[in-house]
Amino acid sequence: MTMPAIIKVHEPENNRDFLDRCRQLPPFFVCTIASTETALIPGVSAAGASPELIPYTAAADVEAIVYGQALCLGKIPENPVGPPSPVIITMAALTELNAPFLVVDAGNAITPKVPMITAGRNPGLSITAPEAVVQVEELFVQGLIIGQQLALNRHTLVLGESVPGGTTTAMAVMEALGISALGKISGSMPGNNQSLKQELVCRAMREKGLKQGSSLDNPLNAVRFLGDPMQAVQAGIAMSASREIPVLLAGGTQMIAVAALIGALLNRPAALTAITTPGAKALLAEAVEARIENIAIATTAWVSEDKSADVRSLMQQLPQALPLYAAGLDFSTSCHKNLSLYEEGYVKEGVGAGAMALSAMLYHDLDNSRFLPLIEKVYEDIYLS
Amino acid sequence: MTMPAIIKVHEPENNRDFLDRCRQLPPFFVCTIASTETALIPGVSAAGASPELIPYTAAADVEAIVYGQALCLGKIPENPVGPPSPVIITMAALTELNAPFLVVDAGNAITPKVPMITAGRNPGLSITAPEAVVQVEELFVQGLIIGQQLALNRHTLVLGESVPGGTTTAMAVMEALGISALGKISGSMPGNNQSLKQELVCRAMREKGLKQGSSLDNPLNAVRFLGDPMQAVQAGIAMSASREIPVLLAGGTQMIAVAALIGALLNRPAALTAITTPGAKALLAEAVEARIENIAIATTAWVSEDKSADVRSLMQQLPQALPLYAAGLDFSTSCHKNLSLYEEGYVKEGVGAGAMALSAMLYHDLDNSRFLPLIEKVYEDIYLS
Repeated sequence: MTMPAIIKVHEPENNRDFLDRCRQLPPFFVCTIASTETALIPGVSAAGASPELIPYTAAADVEAIVYGQALCLGKIPENPVGPPSPVIITMAALTELNAPFLVVDAGNAITPKVPMITAGRNPGLSITAPEAVVQVEELFVQGLIIGQQLALNRHTLVLGESVPGGTTTAMAVMEALGISALGKISGSMPGNNQSLKQELVCRAMREKGLKQGSSLDNPLNAVRFLGDPMQAVQAGIAMSASREIPVLLAGGTQMIAVAALIGALLNRPAALTAITTPGAKALLAEAVEARIENIAIATTAWVSEDKSADVRSLMQQLPQALPLYAAGLDFSTSCHKNLSLYEEGYVKEGVGAGAMALSAMLYHDLDNSRFLPLIEKVYEDIYLS
Repeated sequence: MTMPAIIKVHEPENNRDFLDRCRQLPPFFVCTIASTETALIPGVSAAGASPELIPYTAAADVEAIVYGQALCLGKIPENPVGPPSPVIITMAALTELNAPFLVVDAGNAITPKVPMITAGRNPGLSITAPEAVVQVEELFVQGLIIGQQLALNRHTLVLGESVPGGTTTAMAVMEALGISALGKISGSMPGNNQSLKQELVCRAMREKGLKQGSSLDNPLNAVRFLGDPMQAVQAGIAMSASREIPVLLAGGTQMIAVAALIGALLNRPAALTAITTPGAKALLAEAVEARIENIAIATTAWVSEDKSADVRSLMQQLPQALPLYAAGLDFSTSCHKNLSLYEEGYVKEGVGAGAMALSAMLYHDLDNSRFLPLIEKVYEDIYLS
């Protein structure tokens, strides 16, 4: 059986025209990068060919988009076993679509040599630190401003990320927002190392006196205590932009956590309007009017069909329902071993790969068989030339 | 005699359809901010109500655009005598046009609390320092990348600035690029304090062994030794964007200096392709293909008709000809004393005010009598509410 180009993994009944509405406005790609020291805990992340390269991954990903090479690493990031960063999928889609993009820095340890919109200047700390994300309200407000500006610019926003360690912070934030996420998240290795991540999350929550759902009264606290800087910025961008234009949260379980944050904030508008960040009063009043029906998640089939995760269960538990789509990517027929290794679960998602692949399919009516050669060409240009 | 809404100050014969071409694509405002220690030399700048406030001016201007108030100052910057920053004109135009905008940081001493695209991280030094702008090639390349991205985004680019002290660095850069600029520049005070600025420029050039035209072989050297960070970034943005879309350099003599830099670079493509900034080879090869016919300058009538300056002479000396337009702003009938003081020369231009006023006139068919009330409303909202 051939996989469809676009898989409708989860689609609430009242929002079945979402992709049709996307198609009315051309795509604009935003890649938000951030660090979390959580990624440095052994076993959490397989981004980067070796542990000491993990902090370079996000910078290298966005340098690859801009320059076709990663200046800070000398090569595109890759999994220790060999498969290259999913940024090659994003690069293929950006070229095919001739789409504009921006990099947003939510707080990254290594500064890439690319122009970036600065939303935050502090890398995230470990989920075991007293506060994993400092100044979380400020980050959220900067995201609101970015989203407001991008909305004036009439596109479908595709909001990707590069945050090594981000599936662990996603699991933790979902738990604090009342979602049973243990054992259900995806990640950049076969099997996803669920038990280690689960232990970490449970220990961090226990040490901070947090229980499942205990951040629902003040949802940004989930990010403050257990999350990463990307989550706060991304939620802000999506919420203000959604008032005007369609927004695709571009990622797997990391974006389900962002969607959980948005839904929880919409369910507790008082938590938003209580924020006292200077100058932000009007912005926060507008954030309350975010339109959830303008937000969806898009990822890869490697995530949506990942047997070691359960994105369907996560989607069903969201505080406000929204759709999840997956690009039917399949590298099993690729002539390049390092690409076909994607089929074994070594890399599944990142840098907006799923949503950008889906955009290429949606806007240019491609399927996997026609899109894969474009990805192979990017791979060959980088590695074999 | 009533002033026309749009004054065609200088319009080369082969480019008389420039504004018609602009009208095909909606405006997108970019404000590039930078510091130069040149502004701290007594008498150079009248930005900010007092000398110690000068470094805050650019940050306050862009905070005003985003928040309607300057968080870092507590109020909108103003001239010592009272007239407010021209940012109020830009704010009125942005609201009228509902235009998107971005702030680009070329290297500003005070970090505003707004999301900015970072092109540079080092504030400019004084034109009396050995190098006024360090890493000028890197700044230029970052500008090229930003322009390339913005061009994908189908708008007319309006490139403004907030750089206190920037008319002095403009005079110096023009001189180093072979333009007789002494006594011809405009500035933010009646009479423009020409003699002081002239003395400074002559002394800096003498001390560095530079003569009129001595940077023509390597035009970025004019900025390195005598300029400010905005000039390099702005030239980069304009050159790469001009390959695809119309670009309005939004300012007075500061933008004539940027136009001089662009023209000089186009006359010496070898100086561009000799730059060895990592990853930039393809970008620099494209920069050589900048289309000067897609670039024009737009300013205010306070600059174009400034009797203490001579923009017509400067325009005629440019290495590559391009048009200069002026918005026919006239505040003499304003009910607010601090606005009518604009007519006495205390404030003439800045934060893209002239080009954004011109855009409001061009796209929404306004003239001064219909645009002034919108500016007065912004003024009243800020100062009288």
